[in-house]
Amino acid sequence: MLPNSQHKGVPGNTADAISRLLKPRSVAVIGASADGRKTAGRPVAYLRKHGYTGDIYPVNPRVDSIEGLPCYPDIASLPAVPDVGIVLVGAERAHQAVRELAQQGAAAAIVLASGYTETGAEGARRQAQLIEAAGAMRLLGPNTIGLVNLTDDIVLSASGALEMEHFPTGAIGVVSQSGGILGALLSRAAARGIGLSKLISTSNEVDLELADFIDYLADDDATRVIALYVESVRNPEKFRAAALKAARAGKPVVAFKIGRSEAGAKAAVSHTGALAGADRMYDALFRQTGVIRAQAFGDLLDIPAALATGRVLRGNRVAILTSTGGAGTLVSDSLGVSGFDTPAPDPETAARLRALQTGDHAALDRNPIDVTLAGLQPDLLRGAIRALLESPSYDALTIIVGSSSLAMPELMAGAIQDCLPESDKPVIAYVSPHAPAVAALLTQRGVPAFAAAESCTVALDGMLRHARWQAPAPAAPAASVDVAEDVAEIPAGSLDEAQAKQLFARFGVPCARETVVLTAAEAERAAQSFGGRVVLKILTGEITHKSDVGGVAVNLAPEQVGARLTAMQAEVRDRTGIVQQRFLVQEMVAGGTELILGMHRDPLGTAILLGMGGITAELFKDTAMRLLPAGVAGLSREEALDMVRELKTWPLLDGYRGRPKADVAALVDAIVAFSRMTARLGERLVEAEINPIFVLPRGQGVRAADGVAVLAAASGG
Amino acid sequence: MLPNSQHKGVPGNTADAISRLLKPRSVAVIGASADGRKTAGRPVAYLRKHGYTGDIYPVNPRVDSIEGLPCYPDIASLPAVPDVGIVLVGAERAHQAVRELAQQGAAAAIVLASGYTETGAEGARRQAQLIEAAGAMRLLGPNTIGLVNLTDDIVLSASGALEMEHFPTGAIGVVSQSGGILGALLSRAAARGIGLSKLISTSNEVDLELADFIDYLADDDATRVIALYVESVRNPEKFRAAALKAARAGKPVVAFKIGRSEAGAKAAVSHTGALAGADRMYDALFRQTGVIRAQAFGDLLDIPAALATGRVLRGNRVAILTSTGGAGTLVSDSLGVSGFDTPAPDPETAARLRALQTGDHAALDRNPIDVTLAGLQPDLLRGAIRALLESPSYDALTIIVGSSSLAMPELMAGAIQDCLPESDKPVIAYVSPHAPAVAALLTQRGVPAFAAAESCTVALDGMLRHARWQAPAPAAPAASVDVAEDVAEIPAGSLDEAQAKQLFARFGVPCARETVVLTAAEAERAAQSFGGRVVLKILTGEITHKSDVGGVAVNLAPEQVGARLTAMQAEVRDRTGIVQQRFLVQEMVAGGTELILGMHRDPLGTAILLGMGGITAELFKDTAMRLLPAGVAGLSREEALDMVRELKTWPLLDGYRGRPKADVAALVDAIVAFSRMTARLGERLVEAEINPIFVLPRGQGVRAADGVAVLAAASGG
Repeated sequence: MLPNSQHKGVPGNTADAISRLLKPRSVAVIGASADGRKTAGRPVAYLRKHGYTGDIYPVNPRVDSIEGLPCYPDIASLPAVPDVGIVLVGAERAHQAVRELAQQGAAAAIVLASGYTETGAEGARRQAQLIEAAGAMRLLGPNTIGLVNLTDDIVLSASGALEMEHFPTGAIGVVSQSGGILGALLSRAAARGIGLSKLISTSNEVDLELADFIDYLADDDATRVIALYVESVRNPEKFRAAALKAARAGKPVVAFKIGRSEAGAKAAVSHTGALAGADRMYDALFRQTGVIRAQAFGDLLDIPAALATGRVLRGNRVAILTSTGGAGTLVSDSLGVSGFDTPAPDPETAARLRALQTGDHAALDRNPIDVTLAGLQPDLLRGAIRALLESPSYDALTIIVGSSSLAMPELMAGAIQDCLPESDKPVIAYVSPHAPAVAALLTQRGVPAFAAAESCTVALDGMLRHARWQAPAPAAPAASVDVAEDVAEIPAGSLDEAQAKQLFARFGVPCARETVVLTAAEAERAAQSFGGRVVLKILTGEITHKSDVGGVAVNLAPEQVGARLTAMQAEVRDRTGIVQQRFLVQEMVAGGTELILGMHRDPLGTAILLGMGGITAELFKDTAMRLLPAGVAGLSREEALDMVRELKTWPLLDGYRGRPKADVAALVDAIVAFSRMTARLGERLVEAEINPIFVLPRGQGVRAADGVAVLAAASGG
Repeated sequence: MLPNSQHKGVPGNTADAISRLLKPRSVAVIGASADGRKTAGRPVAYLRKHGYTGDIYPVNPRVDSIEGLPCYPDIASLPAVPDVGIVLVGAERAHQAVRELAQQGAAAAIVLASGYTETGAEGARRQAQLIEAAGAMRLLGPNTIGLVNLTDDIVLSASGALEMEHFPTGAIGVVSQSGGILGALLSRAAARGIGLSKLISTSNEVDLELADFIDYLADDDATRVIALYVESVRNPEKFRAAALKAARAGKPVVAFKIGRSEAGAKAAVSHTGALAGADRMYDALFRQTGVIRAQAFGDLLDIPAALATGRVLRGNRVAILTSTGGAGTLVSDSLGVSGFDTPAPDPETAARLRALQTGDHAALDRNPIDVTLAGLQPDLLRGAIRALLESPSYDALTIIVGSSSLAMPELMAGAIQDCLPESDKPVIAYVSPHAPAVAALLTQRGVPAFAAAESCTVALDGMLRHARWQAPAPAAPAASVDVAEDVAEIPAGSLDEAQAKQLFARFGVPCARETVVLTAAEAERAAQSFGGRVVLKILTGEITHKSDVGGVAVNLAPEQVGARLTAMQAEVRDRTGIVQQRFLVQEMVAGGTELILGMHRDPLGTAILLGMGGITAELFKDTAMRLLPAGVAGLSREEALDMVRELKTWPLLDGYRGRPKADVAALVDAIVAFSRMTARLGERLVEAEINPIFVLPRGQGVRAADGVAVLAAASGG
C-alpha cells in the first residue's frame, strides 16, 4: 500500500473530484462494522464482493480487522490518503469525520446520515457545520444512499437497494435527488434487461448536485444517455450549461420531475427542503436545454432504454410487424393518438414481403403487417424485418411479440438481432403476453422491449424529440435602440401606465399613440390630433383595476372626450373618493388580436411569457414561456417566433377561417425588444407586463395598449 | 352416459344458451386430434387436465379413441346431444358441422376457424353460410379463440394463450373482441395475482356479442366487475341495455376501446370488418351508461383490480403511508395532478400515529405519512393503517412498499389484510422496487398493488367515477308545444334558414324575430317593426356560406336596410351569378354568448352536440355530446345542464370575471326542446344545427340566430 501522496491536500476541480469519487483508487469507510448483517458492515462487504481492486480502509476504533482487512482506529491513522471516505456515523458526528478527511486531502466524502435540513432548524445548523468542515473537499449528500459505478463494478453504499448479485451494465447514467427512487430504478432496470453505467443519489446536495454529474456523464465514455429524477434544480444556470454540454456531446438527457401538483410540490419540499419551482418554468428550462421530459415515472426508463441503442428516428412513420392481430392494432392505435403514422407498405416492399411466402393467413399489404405463423420461422422473420428496415416508407419498426413467439425466444431474438447492423433505424418490441424474461432478452440484444403499447409510443416520441431538438438560436444582435448607458437613470418604483409604455417604447416596443392630459380642453385637443376615435383612461399608479371604478371609456369621438373626462372624474371620485387629476388620451386600436406579453421571475430564473388575450383564451391558459439565461442579451427572433407558433390559438394569427394574417414579424420584434429590456434591466425589473398588445394585420405592426412596470432602485449606479 | 334429451331441439333464450355455453354438461369436439401436440388435440386435453366433470365427445372419423375417450365418426353418432360443440375444422367445412350440431339441438357452437369477413368477399359468403347453418343454435365466433370459465375451471379453447397450470380465479369477467388480447390479459392478470371469473373472445360476433355477455355477467354470481376490450359496438341499444343492467346490479363495467386514432381505426376495420364509430360518440355512449373508459390498455386490469375488492371510494382524500420518501412523493404528485387531495393528518389522527412510537425518523404530521422503519414492524403497521382508515380526513389509503418491506412480504401483507375488514375504504399499494411477487401477494390478499404511481391514481379515479356515476335522469315530460300529430306533414328536403328556424321554434326553441322580404321597401318596414338595429341576409337553400358571397350585413339601422338590400343583391349576383329574390330581416341580437347546438348521426346512434361558438373556442373544440337512446322523448333537463357545465368555457356563462350570468335555464330548455325535436323526427331528420344560438343574460332567454335542417321524406305518413 503506497500513500496516494500526489493527491494529498489537492482536491482538484469538480470533474477530477467526481472522477475520483466514481472510480476511487482507495476508499475509507468511517464507522465500518465487522458485522456484515449490520448496515455499517455493508460498504466493505459490497466492495469486496464485487471485486473492488483498490484499497479499502475500514475505520473503527473498536475493531482490529474487518473481512481480513486491517481496521484503523481513526482517520489520522490511515496508511494513505483515501480518494473517497464513506461516512457512516450519525449526523451528530459526521462533520468531525468530514473535517478529518478534508484535512487528509481526500477528494470526496459520502455522507449517508440523515437529520439535516430535511428535519428542521437543528438539522440546518448541522448541515452548515458539515459544509464548513468539508472545506475544499467535495461532498455527496448528506442523506444520500451513495452511488454505484456499474461500469467498473464499484458500490459505494450501505443500502441494500443499491446492491445486487449482478448489475445490469449498460449506457444509461442515472442521477436522482431521491435515494429510494434510485434503488427502484436499479431493480426495475435489472429486471427489464436495461443496462446502466452509473447510479448516483445526490439527495440534500450540500455540494455536488445534479448538474455536476450531468457535466461529468457528458464526458463519460460508458454513458450514452443521462436519466434524471428531479425534485428541484438548485442552480439553473449550472444545470443549463451541463445539459447543453450533454446535448453538444450527442447525449440525450431525460428527466422526470415531481412537484407537478401542489400536493406533490408540498411533499417535495418536506422531503428535500428545497423550494419547488413552478412546474411550467421547468418545462421551459427543459425545452430550452434539450432535456426530454418524462411525463410518467415509467417513461424515465422507457425513453432512455430506446435512446441507449444509439439508433436514430428520422421521421414519424412506423412499420408494425405482428403475428397477432389484436396487439398490432393496440400499438397502431396508441401511435396514431400521438401523431405517428403507420402507412401501408409501398408496392415494392409489399412485393418483397409476399415473396417471403409467409402463407395464406398473412396480411402483407396493410400495416400492422401480419405474418401470422411466419413469426415462428427465423428466416422469414429476418426477411420481413430487412424488407421493412430497407423500405423508404418507414422510419422505425415495432415488432409485436405474441404468445406464439414465446416458444423459442432465443431464436426469435437472434433473428431480430441479426438485422440490426444493417440499418440505424429504431427497432423496438411490444411483448403482448406477460413474458418479462423474453422482454429482457430482447432488450439486452439491442431491441428495447415494452409491456405497454403506450410505452412503445412514448419511447419513439422521446427518440423523435431528441432527433428534432436544436439548440436555441443565439440572441439577436444589439437592438437598434441604444439604451446602454442610461438604464441606471430610470427612476425606481411602480410606473404609471404612460411611464411604463414610455419604458417599453424606449426599448423598441411600439405603443399606441397617447398624450397625458389634465383638462377636458387638453383631452379634446389631443384626441383631435390623433384624427380618429380614442380611448380615455384615468392615469394613476394607485388604482389597478381602472375599469372597475369607471376609469376607462373606449371608442370616443374627439368631440365627446372633454365631456367624458369631466363625467369620469366625477364617477371615479364617487366610487373611490380620489379626485383624479391626470388622464390619458390614447388612439383607439381596432382590428387587431389581443395578446399579453410579460416577464416572470422565480427561483429558476426570469421568463418571458406570451399569452393570447381575450376572455376565452384566458380560460384555456394559452401561453408560451421561455427562460432568459443569465448573461444573454434577450431572446432571438427564432425563439420568439417559436413562442408565437406554440400558442394553441396560433391559427388566429395565421389567417384562420379567412381572417387577415397578423403582423407576426412585428410581434416577434416586440417580443425580442421586451426580452432585451428584461435582460438589460436585470434585477431592477421587478414586474413588467403589456396587456394587451394588439397585433394588427400584416404590414400594420403591433401596439402596446396598456402595461405595468415596477422597478427596484438601482444599486450603485 | 345419459342423453341430454331435455335439451334436444330446444336452444332456449340467450341467457340460457350462454349459461350452457359457459358451463356445459357435455362438450363435443368436432375435428379432435389424438395428438396432444397438435392444435386440434388441445381442447380435449385442456378439458381433462382441469378436471372437467361433464361428458366429452371427440368427433373424428379416423380415430377410435382420444385420451381414453371413445371417439365418434360424426355428429350424428353422438350418444347424446352436447350442450356445446367446439368446431375445429376449417372455414370450408365448419358450416356443415354447425348445421349438424344445430340439428341435434346443441345450445351453442364455438367456431375457431378464421377466413370469414375479416378476409374479404369470399369470407363474407362463408360467414353468411355459417349463420344460416346455425339456425336457432347460438354461435360464438367465428375466428374466436374460445372461452375460459375460471370459476368452474372449464377451458373451451384450442389456444395455448388461454391455458395455464392454475387459473387466477376471482371476480373480474372479461369479454374481448380480440382473442390475442384476451390471452395477454389472462397471462398479465395471472402474473399480478388479479383474479378472473370468465374470459370470452367474441371476435367476429356473427351471433353472440359483447352485449350478450355483459348481460349474462351482470347476473353471474362469480362476477363483480366486467372488463371489455372493444373494437366496435355492433348494437348500441343492446349494449346500452346490458351496461345499464350491470349498473343496476352494482357491477362496474370498464372498457378499453381501440380505434381512437385514424390509424387505429383503420387497423380495427382490417381486423374485424366492423365499422369503427367516431371515438367521441363512444365517449358519450360509455358516459351515459356508466361504463368507465380505460384510457390506456393497462388500465383495463388496473381499474377492475381495484373495483373487484368491492370497497367504496366516497371522496378524493387519500392518505399515503410510506417507509420511503421518494416513492411517497411520486404517488402524491401523481394523485395531485389528477385532482386528488392528500391532506395532512387531522390532529387526532396525528396523535394516534405518534402514540405508536415509530421512532425518531418518522414524519407523522404530513402526508405522505412516513413511518420509516415501522414499516417493518407488523404491529406498528397495523396501528398506523387503523388510524388512517378510521380518520375522518381520508377516503382511501395508499401504502407504499419500499425495498425495506420486501424482506418479509408475508408478514406485511398479513398485517395489512388484518385491517381490511374494519373499514370499506379502499386500500391499495404502490410497490416501488421491482417486486412482482410481492405485488401479486398483496393483490391476492385484497390489496390491489401497482408498479406505477400513475396506476394507483387511475385505479382510484376509476373507483371514484364508479361511485359518483348516476344513471341519467329520465327525459323531461312532454314539451309544452304539442307537435304530436303533424310531424309527417313537415315537408322533406333542405330547409332554408327561415324554414329551419320555424321548425326549431315549433318545437320550442326561441328564435330571433325575423321576416322574409322580397323588396327594399318590405325590408325597411320589417326593420322598423322590430324597433332596433337589424341583420339582413340572403335567404337561400343553395348558398351555404352566405357571408362569403356578401350575403350578410349586420348592425343596420332600419333606414339603411333598403339600400343595403339593393347593394347586396348586386354583389351576390356579381359573385355567384344568382339574382337573389328573397331576403331575411332579423332583429340584431347583442350582448349574448354564442353557442352551437346540433345533432349528429353515426352508427352508434343520434347525438345532441352543444359547443361554444366564437373563433377561439372553435380552435379548442369545446363541445359536449350526448346520445339519444332509441325510444326516449329527448334529453332530460339534468342531462342538458350537465352538457352545459361540461364545456370548458362554462365559466363564460357563469359570471366569469364580472360578466353577467347567462340565462342557463333558457339554454337548458332550448337543448331539451332541440333534443325532443330530434327524437320526434327520428329518421326523418338528416341534419340539423343552430349556429349560433345566443344565450343572453339571465332572465333574457336565448335566441337561435341561424340554422340549417335537412329532412328526409316521410315514410308511410
